[in-house]
Order: sequence, then C-alpha cells, then structure tokens
Amino acid sequence: MRVYIAGMDGYLGWTLAQYLTARGHKVAGADFYFRRKWVDEMGSHSATPVVSIEERLEAFKENFGQELLFWEGDLQDYGFVERTFREFQPEAIVHFAECPSAPYSMIDVHHAVWVQTNNIMGTLNMLFAMRDVCPQAHLVKLGTMGEYGTPNVDIPEGFFKIEYRGRTDTLPFPRQAGSWYHQTKVHDSHNITFACKIWGLRSTDIMQGVVFGTRIDEMGDDERMLTRLDFDESFGTAINRYCCQAVIGHPLTPFGKGYQRRGFLPLRDSMQCLTIAIENPPQAGEYRVFNQFEEIYDVTELAHKVQKVGGELGLDVVVRNIENPRVEMEEHYYNPDHQHLLDLGYQPTHDMEAELRIMLGDLIEYRSRIDEKREVLIPDIRWDGTRRKSQFLNRR
Amino acid sequence: MRVYIAGMDGYLGWTLAQYLTARGHKVAGADFYFRRKWVDEMGSHSATPVVSIEERLEAFKENFGQELLFWEGDLQDYGFVERTFREFQPEAIVHFAECPSAPYSMIDVHHAVWVQTNNIMGTLNMLFAMRDVCPQAHLVKLGTMGEYGTPNVDIPEGFFKIEYRGRTDTLPFPRQAGSWYHQTKVHDSHNITFACKIWGLRSTDIMQGVVFGTRIDEMGDDERMLTRLDFDESFGTAINRYCCQAVIGHPLTPFGKGYQRRGFLPLRDSMQCLTIAIENPPQAGEYRVFNQFEEIYDVTELAHKVQKVGGELGLDVVVRNIENPRVEMEEHYYNPDHQHLLDLGYQPTHDMEAELRIMLGDLIEYRSRIDEKREVLIPDIRWDGTRRKSQFLNRR
Repeated sequence: MRVYIAGMDGYLGWTLAQYLTARGHKVAGADFYFRRKWVDEMGSHSATPVVSIEERLEAFKENFGQELLFWEGDLQDYGFVERTFREFQPEAIVHFAECPSAPYSMIDVHHAVWVQTNNIMGTLNMLFAMRDVCPQAHLVKLGTMGEYGTPNVDIPEGFFKIEYRGRTDTLPFPRQAGSWYHQTKVHDSHNITFACKIWGLRSTDIMQGVVFGTRIDEMGDDERMLTRLDFDESFGTAINRYCCQAVIGHPLTPFGKGYQRRGFLPLRDSMQCLTIAIENPPQAGEYRVFNQFEEIYDVTELAHKVQKVGGELGLDVVVRNIENPRVEMEEHYYNPDHQHLLDLGYQPTHDMEAELRIMLGDLIEYRSRIDEKREVLIPDIRWDGTRRKSQFLNRR
Repeated sequence: MRVYIAGMDGYLGWTLAQYLTARGHKVAGADFYFRRKWVDEMGSHSATPVVSIEERLEAFKENFGQELLFWEGDLQDYGFVERTFREFQPEAIVHFAECPSAPYSMIDVHHAVWVQTNNIMGTLNMLFAMRDVCPQAHLVKLGTMGEYGTPNVDIPEGFFKIEYRGRTDTLPFPRQAGSWYHQTKVHDSHNITFACKIWGLRSTDIMQGVVFGTRIDEMGDDERMLTRLDFDESFGTAINRYCCQAVIGHPLTPFGKGYQRRGFLPLRDSMQCLTIAIENPPQAGEYRVFNQFEEIYDVTELAHKVQKVGGELGLDVVVRNIENPRVEMEEHYYNPDHQHLLDLGYQPTHDMEAELRIMLGDLIEYRSRIDEKREVLIPDIRWDGTRRKSQFLNRR
C-alpha cells in the first residue's frame, strides 16, 4: 500500500516508516523539522542522537535497500500538501505532523495560537487535498486519549448510544481536553468528522495513550536508524522522562498526588496498532475512532515500575513527587474502552518490564547526553500562565 | 457597566451599541470592517445603506449626546486586543467579531482556513488578554444553535446529565456542526470552557438562533443609525433573504424539501437577551450556555409567513424551493431547550408578523438597492466544493 507519513522525521514517524517498509508497504513522507526546532527552543535535545534527515535517508537506503521518498515542507502551505499528494497518490495518509505538546502550547498566547493554527490548519489542508486529489485514501489521524479528559463515566471509542428524555441517538462522546494542544486534537476530530460526512472521506482517528520506548526490532543495530527520545518537560512523555531520570540518578517526578490514571503502550505496540488501522481501512464516508493503549496505570505506579527495572539494572532510583504545574484532576475515575483494535487482531505485548529493560539499556548508553540537559527534567511551564520550576513535595 | 463590543460595526454590534447606551451602559468597541469587505467580495451590499464608521460615530454622538469609543483593529493582533482592554478596562466583553457565514467558509480551502483562523485565534487572543488584563470581566460570546446540529434527542443548554453503563456525569452536550464556520463556534466553545476552568474566567456562550429584523426602536428615524441587512447567499440569514426577495418580486427560496427546523428571534429580542446576559453575569470560573431563540419553524413555514405579511403590504409573493447547496438533514427531530434566558426575565416579542411588517416596510424603501444585486439571492456555493447556481425545484 502507498502510505504517506506527514511528520516522518518525528518520534513515531521515523519509526513507522521503517516498520511499514519492512512489511512491504511503499512509504513516502514529509516534514518541516518543527520537532527539532521546538526541542531546541526548550533548551534540550533527544536522548538518542538524531542525525540529519540526509543521513537518515542514506541510512534507510543502506538498511532497506530502497529509497525513502521525502519532501521538506509545511502542511500549513496548501500548495505543498496538494503537490505531494498528487505526486505520490497515497492510499493511506498517516498524520503525525502536529505539535504534540501540552506544556509547549501553554507557554503564552503566542505559543497557544501557533500550536492551534499549525495543528488545525494543517489538518484542514490535508482534508481539502484529499478531497481534490485522493478522495479514496484513508486518513489515519493521530489523536490522543487526552481529548476525553477524565469524565466520571466509561469512555467509549468515539461514539456512544444514549437515551435522553425518552429518546435515543448515537452521539460523539463529549471531549473535555486539558491544554491548548489537547484542544487542537478535539477540534481536528470535529473537522474530520465533518469532512467524512460531506465529502465521503474515510478516516481513523487514533486516540493514542502515552507511548514509551526507544526502538523497534526493525531498526537493527544502526544508530542512525534509532528514533528520537525526548525528555524535556514539553516533548518528553511521563514514562520516557522517568527512564531518562533513572539513568542519571535524578528522582522520578510524578506530578502532584500522582494518582492521575492514563493508558500506556510501548512503541512497538503503537506501530502494530497503526499498521492494523492502515491495513483495515474504513468505508467511504466513515469516521471511526480507536482508543489505542494497552494498560492503565497511575503515574506513580509507572514510576515504581521504572524504579524496579532500574534497580535490576543496577540503577539507584528514587521517586519524589513534585508540584503539579497543570490544572487537572489528580484522583479520578478512568475506564476507557479499547476493543476496536483487539477485534482487528492487535496482540498486546503485555510485558511492560521487558520493554523498560530494553529502553533503560539504550538510555544508559546516552547517559551523558541526558545529564548535560538535566535542567529540562523539572517543569516550569504552569497552567496558570506563570513560569516557575516545580518544587519537590514531601508526600507519599 | 463598561461593555466592550468586538465587531461593533456589524449587524448585531452596531445595534447593541445603541441598545446598551440607551440603557445607560458605557460602551466601547472595535472593528476591522471585515464584514464590509466580505459582502463586497460576494458582489453584494447591505439592503439598508451603511455609512462610513466616521459618519456612524458622528450620528451616534448627535443622537445619544455622547461619544462612542471606537478602535480600528484586528483581534488576530494580540497587542491590539490587550491594549484596548487595558485602556477601557471592560466589565463585560461581547464578542461578535467572527466571520458568521457557513457558505463563505465553504467556498474553498483558503476561505475555510481563513475563517477558522480568524475566529478561533481571535477568541484565543481575547481569552489571554482577559486573563492578563481583566480576569473579572464577563465574556459574552456569540455562538450559534448550529453548533448542535440536528441530533435525534432534545438539545439541552450546553450540558446534560447522563447515565451511562450505570454511572452518571454532567457532560458537555456533543456538538455536530454543519459547516467550517459552524465548526469554529464549536472549537471556541471548547476553548472558552477550558479557559474558564483553568483561569477562573467567566463566560456566557450564546447559542443564538436565526435573527431577523432591520431595526430597534432606539435607532429612531436617523437613517445613519440603521443597522446593515445583508441578503447575499453568504451573509444573509434565511428570513432576511426572504424579506428582500419579497420586496423585489423574487420567489422566496427554501432549500431542498424545506423542512429544516430552526429557532428564530427578532433583532429586538436578540438585544434584550444579550443585555440580560450582560446584566446577570455568571460566577468566576463559570462557563454557561444560553440557547437563545423564541420560536421554532421550518424554513417553509417561515417563507409562508413572509408571503402572508407581504401580501398584506401589497406584495405579490411566491415560494419556490430550490436545490439545497448544503449537505444537511432536510427532515429531522428538533427540540432544543431555551429556559435559561426566560428564567432571567426574557420577555419574548411573540408577534413575528408585526416584526415582519416593520421589516418589509423598511426594505420596500430600499427596493432598488436590493434589485440592483438580485443575482446574489440564489446560492452557488455548494457543500460538495463545486460552485454552481441552485436550480428551482418543482416540489411542494
């Protein structure tokens, strides 16, 4: 299948390009290197070394024996999107090309506006280009479990049938996102639903949980094939940051009470799930939602898992909660469905500790790169608009 | 009360400035004249003559014996928003400064992106400026009943308590908007809810029905005080367009089957409702939703009302349905709540025919202005992305 990956130079994009190529798909992609710039702006870098795109493409050719088609450009430029779709005629389009950071979007009005503009308008451009160039293609859109927030009822996969005052309807499940970034994914969900309805486009909206991991088997031993692994407050996910903290002897830092529950999955499972979605497209006009995660933990349980595996590897890991820079519920009900991908054959890894072992092993090699930027591990971007480093708490 | 009206040069803004001033409020406002430019782009003009802003302000001074504070500027310019808020220190901010047209947003990708950017980012800028300058102020935000779409259940005012799999929660009612424009109002609703939650701002989101009418009593006999009345396919609402069609002997043109049901209210009731919202602000941190309309009709019933009143005024009015350029349900359940404003003292006019009589009387005076632009009365912007004039149907 011809698969276009928007955001191919990123954490998931670079990984998926390899995973899909290894499975025999024809992959092409685009990127404008925003992720590199944002992480630079945060004063950080990837824990794993990231070579230039030219070197990545060269390494790809050496490892896979074929060229990886690549365009440099911005999805906010409609002409770019339309031109590359025309050239490649994609059958599936995987959309990773959004700014994925809640804290980055909360820095100030300019960051909020930039993130909302970039994400929403990039997606709008893709929808119009699909309509005009490849209306049969399947848009696999990266959303986030964070779109739902933390309601006091079960979270279905996108839609739910309800009875209200004696009548029934199947409605979109209400979204209550917790940052300007998360809101962009909510807005996308609404825009994409509408495009499918009026133009007969087809899309899978992936409500992805928190992904962790440094590698998939397809990357082999070539360091140039490794994906990036961010640990700064904006672009590092909780568990990736914990692992980076563990390898440099920094306390693991759950936010606040640390009872916030989220769905998690390893990078290899994320690839498996995305591929299942790609290889099983919806009908024309269908907008479907997959909740994509494997297991639910609270962020303190996760820290203890990293502590345990780190201990087995000889690391001395402590957990110390810090002030929560976010406005969010720290204790809440959380029971999202995640059946659609299992129905299509998703086989979860389940062994999170094995995954953490691989990951910590990789990161130990890059300990000095993390240590050099250790300042970025403690957040200072607060939801109230101020910017002050979180202090350690003495709870738990 | 100090009331800042964003979009003061528009249909509702210019009217509200007069209505509030007559009630003793201190009004200031901003505009960037986009409405004038959009209508010009559609090849049309207001049925009522609209003088320049300088002449409007001069007329205002003559009629009300006081200056109307006004700034020319774009809400997409954060510095402009913050500076004018600092200067005026508003207690209430009424936000009319969005592009309000479904068809305009559906023209092409550039219009869709422009409308979404203008509306969403203007509102974001206002939220940040409120946080930093006047966090106690009350944002009265113009939404639309169109945010809800046409679900098969009753439509509550913003939120509903549901039971789902044995648990209960009060959730935002799902939004299913029918154009890129309507989607912007949905996105705003989400963004504003979030700002109220994290920053303790207060907002009333007005889900307004379709407004009609040329004047309110406060405008007196000064033609310069009249508000604009658009009848082109993009900026004319159904009933305003019907009235313009009636006075020039053009058939009234319900779309498709013509059974689409909507809530309507006269301009004077819109002013009354907005003022009730302004004078009864919510608590800090509260985001509340008012469904604002008076009566529900389908668009054919409305046409017949215009036909009847037109007949009494000696107009020969026929109704001929045309192809529906939109993708929407033409027969559907529709039962939205509208209790919140009644609870706060809203007294509906109820006599729609009296209102239509005033309106048609005004428009007859401007018959030649409408006739000159009669081409714009038949839509050509279609939801499928093409642009072809709708043809008359022979149904009904």
